[in-house]
Amino acid sequence: MDNQLVESIVNEVIKRVQDEACFEVEASGKHVHLNREAIDALFGEGYQLTKARDLSQPGQYACKERVTLIGPKGSLHNVIVLGPERKQSQVEISLTDSVVLGVSVPVRESGKIDGTPGVIIAAGSNLHKLDQGLIAAQRHIHVKAEDAAKFNVTNGEIVQVKVMGKRPLIFDDVLIRVSPNFETYMHIDYDEANACGFVKGTKGQILKKSK
Amino acid sequence: MDNQLVESIVNEVIKRVQDEACFEVEASGKHVHLNREAIDALFGEGYQLTKARDLSQPGQYACKERVTLIGPKGSLHNVIVLGPERKQSQVEISLTDSVVLGVSVPVRESGKIDGTPGVIIAAGSNLHKLDQGLIAAQRHIHVKAEDAAKFNVTNGEIVQVKVMGKRPLIFDDVLIRVSPNFETYMHIDYDEANACGFVKGTKGQILKKSK
Repeated sequence: MDNQLVESIVNEVIKRVQDEACFEVEASGKHVHLNREAIDALFGEGYQLTKARDLSQPGQYACKERVTLIGPKGSLHNVIVLGPERKQSQVEISLTDSVVLGVSVPVRESGKIDGTPGVIIAAGSNLHKLDQGLIAAQRHIHVKAEDAAKFNVTNGEIVQVKVMGKRPLIFDDVLIRVSPNFETYMHIDYDEANACGFVKGTKGQILKKSK
Repeated sequence: MDNQLVESIVNEVIKRVQDEACFEVEASGKHVHLNREAIDALFGEGYQLTKARDLSQPGQYACKERVTLIGPKGSLHNVIVLGPERKQSQVEISLTDSVVLGVSVPVRESGKIDGTPGVIIAAGSNLHKLDQGLIAAQRHIHVKAEDAAKFNVTNGEIVQVKVMGKRPLIFDDVLIRVSPNFETYMHIDYDEANACGFVKGTKGQILKKSK
């Protein structure tokens, strides 16, 4: 084999191995997950959320319903409701959004809302007071169970991720969430998306374990 | 010497060397630099900007004057003017701000504004149309000339910086700017500040050269 051929095979193998280890990044805007009590209060007893489009995670969808979040300093309008209905309501905003509301919001893993601040949710003239559940979501990767071995990660692990946006950076403290119900996507919020120059199709790659 | 003593000396040396290699990070909000023509148009012929407080960079200061930026989709109010007067006007906003204005803004090194979009600046009922100069500032470190050797960097170099905020991350593509007129501070915008969990006093450290 001549050297040029060897070179091109080596490059092709490297490219494919690298592609293999990459995953797509998605930026999540502010959104709310509602429980039955909240849906009843905001949209009426027994109301069913209306699916508008599927999200990347199987079974999760964007709804047609929109709400307003009301904080001590200001409001966020036209906030999307994600379905399906959950056991506990949770409101996910960015730190930029938290400045508009005038609430200091902690960075938390989804679902871990003990001791987090509350917020008032409005839909039309209906109000629902959430006592807790307002968070900035900790950046995370949903890993499909069969991809966990490929990426050499386990559920709950914290990793570093290089994001190849237009302003490349390496996110530390990225939470790994593994489930057979997931598709493999990394989720960041819009502060993080803007900081890395995210555009649709931006890829990420796990660099090494954090700590 | 016993092992414990050796250990404590080693740890103290490591701590001091690391402290040595750290610098403070500052988050810059949206702001404008104005030239004579812009100051005349916005505040009146021959008007002198009013210093309100000094900034970390020697000779640079925040002014009492505020302006409004007007874009095709929306406006940004109460935008601070920085002094002193410059040879060319420049408006620095975050990518989040650019969504409010409705303008696609490039990430640029300060001063490199050829081919960048313009924006309308308003002060009271006075308007000034900037044909170019609207940028998102490329993250950078102002390095005091005598610190350049300590950090092993030269002017114009691109480095990686680990920022020890509450959401730690490593910024790639950080521009080094060296001048005897600088004090050593890293500057990021508020998208980047929120993405790394910046609070006043957050420190950064150069990790290694990029590329």
